[in-house]
Amino acid sequence: MNTTFLGVLGGMGPLATVDFLRNLVRKTKADVDQEHIPVLLYSDCTTPDRTANLVASGASPLPKLLNGIRFLNQHKVRAICIPCNSAHAWFDQMQAESEAPLLHIVQASAAQLRRKNPKASAVGVLSTFGTYRMGLYSSTLHDLGYRVVTPTEAEFEMLITPAIAMNKANKWAEAEALYEVAMNILLDRGAEVIVLGCTEIPFGMERLVRSNPTRFVDSNDALVEAVIDRFAPVTTS
Amino acid sequence: MNTTFLGVLGGMGPLATVDFLRNLVRKTKADVDQEHIPVLLYSDCTTPDRTANLVASGASPLPKLLNGIRFLNQHKVRAICIPCNSAHAWFDQMQAESEAPLLHIVQASAAQLRRKNPKASAVGVLSTFGTYRMGLYSSTLHDLGYRVVTPTEAEFEMLITPAIAMNKANKWAEAEALYEVAMNILLDRGAEVIVLGCTEIPFGMERLVRSNPTRFVDSNDALVEAVIDRFAPVTTS
Repeated sequence: MNTTFLGVLGGMGPLATVDFLRNLVRKTKADVDQEHIPVLLYSDCTTPDRTANLVASGASPLPKLLNGIRFLNQHKVRAICIPCNSAHAWFDQMQAESEAPLLHIVQASAAQLRRKNPKASAVGVLSTFGTYRMGLYSSTLHDLGYRVVTPTEAEFEMLITPAIAMNKANKWAEAEALYEVAMNILLDRGAEVIVLGCTEIPFGMERLVRSNPTRFVDSNDALVEAVIDRFAPVTTS
Repeated sequence: MNTTFLGVLGGMGPLATVDFLRNLVRKTKADVDQEHIPVLLYSDCTTPDRTANLVASGASPLPKLLNGIRFLNQHKVRAICIPCNSAHAWFDQMQAESEAPLLHIVQASAAQLRRKNPKASAVGVLSTFGTYRMGLYSSTLHDLGYRVVTPTEAEFEMLITPAIAMNKANKWAEAEALYEVAMNILLDRGAEVIVLGCTEIPFGMERLVRSNPTRFVDSNDALVEAVIDRFAPVTTS
């Protein structure tokens, strides 16, 4: 029945989901409500923290992720996207439970990277420590021939992990100072482009991104572009 | 199973839904994802235009509204809100189909009005022509003892209806000029407070609202406050 709906497995975090939806509305070519993409959102923000499970002994988010995937499939969504990079550590398990195709945020980011800066060869990646530890970006980007530049484990601990926690508590200015240090470290190590490989990070880097938009690939924005590509026949019909 | 979820019947329009969700995240007292309110969103933006049905011969949105209400009830949401004023013309029919309580955006706006400006006696209302024609605000506000100031039918036709259409097509600056004329007309007629009784209108009035925030009651923001009041025991537990 709802085969024109996009399924969104969200809430990780809730603001990243809103950012995704807002950007989807803004980028869809539509003059009236009825030309936009119908959305079913399952946003269970009580899903256990992804990184806390990937790098420590936190509860697994997988049962709640699969609840969401099953829910969205019950309603025959046309495709599912997940505006959270770290959750993609369970991508294969989720896809195995889903009749609807899942769009992959890392592949979407790699596509935007190639489109936005075809000459870049060294790419910096800012992400959660969980995404880093699972090699979600490094494996994909290595396969595409890029040199991947990441923070060290100590830099994750001192800069990135506290900055993401500040973001989630709406402490933007404090987070920004830490992200800026981390960004400059990656640039010093030769990164030509910086992938914001955590959907929370852009909220803490708005000023930095605005001052040099071509330097950054925003994974959440890349996911929006992948959705619009997928739904284009609907939105233009 | 999902009794902690808020149900949102959205997509009318899609950007108003995003604005509602964004404001909900910002206003919820939470330091981590897991303290936010879980959300199920049914956003069928193909729902026929509400005003086109209320004031002309457009298709009825009721069947699609009821699809959404039934869907949200299947998943045992705790309450349902609808970030679209005009859709409240069908509030009673929707509530009759819903086990979950529906929060009423006009009552939420009236509550914010009394809290924000307890001395005001004359209230201007900017809304769709459909909301106006159905008397959604005037009946509630009259009952509370307010004098209600609205545009004339000619002013709806020349100012409000085209401005809302511009909003929906992302033409903010053009819309703002029309809203400003309409706002000044209501102020000239004695309005002390202006209720933005259409969830699309705030996007076209951001500068005007920022320059004098106490003058305005934003119905979408009022709905967020009603939701947070309702879910407070969950968010603070």
